[in-house]
Amino acid sequence: MSGAPPRGALAPVLTPFTETLAPDARRLAAHCRWLADRGAGLAVFGTNSEANSMSVREKRELLDALCEAGVEPGLLLPGAGSCALPDAVELAGHAASLGCAGVLMLPPFYYKDVSDDGLFAFFSETVERVGDGRLRIILYHIPAVSGVPLSLPLIERLAAAHPEAVAGVKDSGGDPARTRELNALGLPGFGVFCGSEAFLLDNMRHGGAGCISATVNINPAAIAGLCERWRDPDAQRMQERLDRVRAVVEDFPMIPALKAAAAAITGERGWLRVRPPLTALDPAREEVLAARLRRAGLEMPG
Amino acid sequence: MSGAPPRGALAPVLTPFTETLAPDARRLAAHCRWLADRGAGLAVFGTNSEANSMSVREKRELLDALCEAGVEPGLLLPGAGSCALPDAVELAGHAASLGCAGVLMLPPFYYKDVSDDGLFAFFSETVERVGDGRLRIILYHIPAVSGVPLSLPLIERLAAAHPEAVAGVKDSGGDPARTRELNALGLPGFGVFCGSEAFLLDNMRHGGAGCISATVNINPAAIAGLCERWRDPDAQRMQERLDRVRAVVEDFPMIPALKAAAAAITGERGWLRVRPPLTALDPAREEVLAARLRRAGLEMPG
Repeated sequence: MSGAPPRGALAPVLTPFTETLAPDARRLAAHCRWLADRGAGLAVFGTNSEANSMSVREKRELLDALCEAGVEPGLLLPGAGSCALPDAVELAGHAASLGCAGVLMLPPFYYKDVSDDGLFAFFSETVERVGDGRLRIILYHIPAVSGVPLSLPLIERLAAAHPEAVAGVKDSGGDPARTRELNALGLPGFGVFCGSEAFLLDNMRHGGAGCISATVNINPAAIAGLCERWRDPDAQRMQERLDRVRAVVEDFPMIPALKAAAAAITGERGWLRVRPPLTALDPAREEVLAARLRRAGLEMPG
Repeated sequence: MSGAPPRGALAPVLTPFTETLAPDARRLAAHCRWLADRGAGLAVFGTNSEANSMSVREKRELLDALCEAGVEPGLLLPGAGSCALPDAVELAGHAASLGCAGVLMLPPFYYKDVSDDGLFAFFSETVERVGDGRLRIILYHIPAVSGVPLSLPLIERLAAAHPEAVAGVKDSGGDPARTRELNALGLPGFGVFCGSEAFLLDNMRHGGAGCISATVNINPAAIAGLCERWRDPDAQRMQERLDRVRAVVEDFPMIPALKAAAAAITGERGWLRVRPPLTALDPAREEVLAARLRRAGLEMPG
């Protein structure tokens, strides 16, 4: 991993599956290259990647396959969070050994109402057991899904205890005021990412590092562009263009909709597959989605 | 696995850890024997076992170690639920191949607000991919922890689609009226377990199969006794004696308290260890817990 935390627009990269619902490494590598060519970083194994619907072994093998396929490790920020400490250690250690930019790390999310002491111990043990000075962790706050929020005092305490390893946070809490509070902590070398590009300009203006957002999967160049040019006079108009695409996606179930959009963009119907407990988008809605995305200004064939 | 689902009192068996927080197979096997000698079944890898804090490999190896240590497979109901389909298939398949009584199965619990169709697909795929006629699944409803409830229509649909494999439900919803509704479905060969012995007599009177309850770890003989003798004239008094012990435990954080009680019963301080994100019971509270359990009538040394 590099000494600096990642910055900019990162996609929680959608995971394509084969007919038997196995991860499709070839199609994933192609999607990663498409994203990287448009300026996006690669947060593979995020929420929108159906990461927790895959085994540790599947994720290790996919990460190896991406590196073998020529994807630049320095662009990769794989998810390594897990309910089980040994799984988190295995994934984070493997990512560090491959030279990934860092890892995105959920808290353990089975038990609810756990203490900050318990969460601190989980992340600290992970850092210590990995024992690799290259490890960079982006903490992942997404309470509506994980059920386990990361408090500001916990984040400060982790950054103070592990100033090299704990390199940032992804705030998917949906409240830009809280994202501003995270920036206002002023932690050195610490990157604050918003979890939706709807808050991207606001985050950049308050010192943020970028966004890690589902929609980067289908709108990478425009979102990466705002990360680069947020000081430009037309930044507000760029934000508004991002918002029009985002608003369409939010009217649909997020992951199935993004996969349907990927299918429409690539012409590959295999993109529609999801692993249970998710279900694919109702075919009747696919065309509605594509038409609305086109009207919102997204470049799509057809 | 046997043709009939398990019945009676089962403990979600506490998992002891070594100084390095590795699972302690020797101590676990001893605890399993202690429970079995008192008439309890062995729901290893439940919520109170910190099952989701262990990797799939650790659970496979523990299950093998228990069988090698002479624990009767027919007494075992290991947890096999997982967020990832391949993990659920691996654990359920391994349990079936060892001749376990069945498996206790959480729904995939990362994504929230998923559809019954998606959950149906997850459980159905598990049954089909295991492909072992011996597999018996007890569905596990514990919405306050998993965040993913199992609706009555889903349970009926699964039992109808897989009448052999889907053999029962553990209802840890905390509402005895709902447990009665599950019994009233009248599904053939289907066992309804309550998740706390506080509802045991009520469940048995409405046709239930028993309970799978944390407290069985420390009060096995009395809880198994009520499962056997719920028709006896003094059943209500037996229930009240169980309630006194249960009420003490509920005043403490459940898993750390049960481990502290196990440490007090066995004299083995190693029982106190938990994996993060849990934290061990405050040492100042250990003696309070032990004293209150004794006053509530639990047999404990000291």
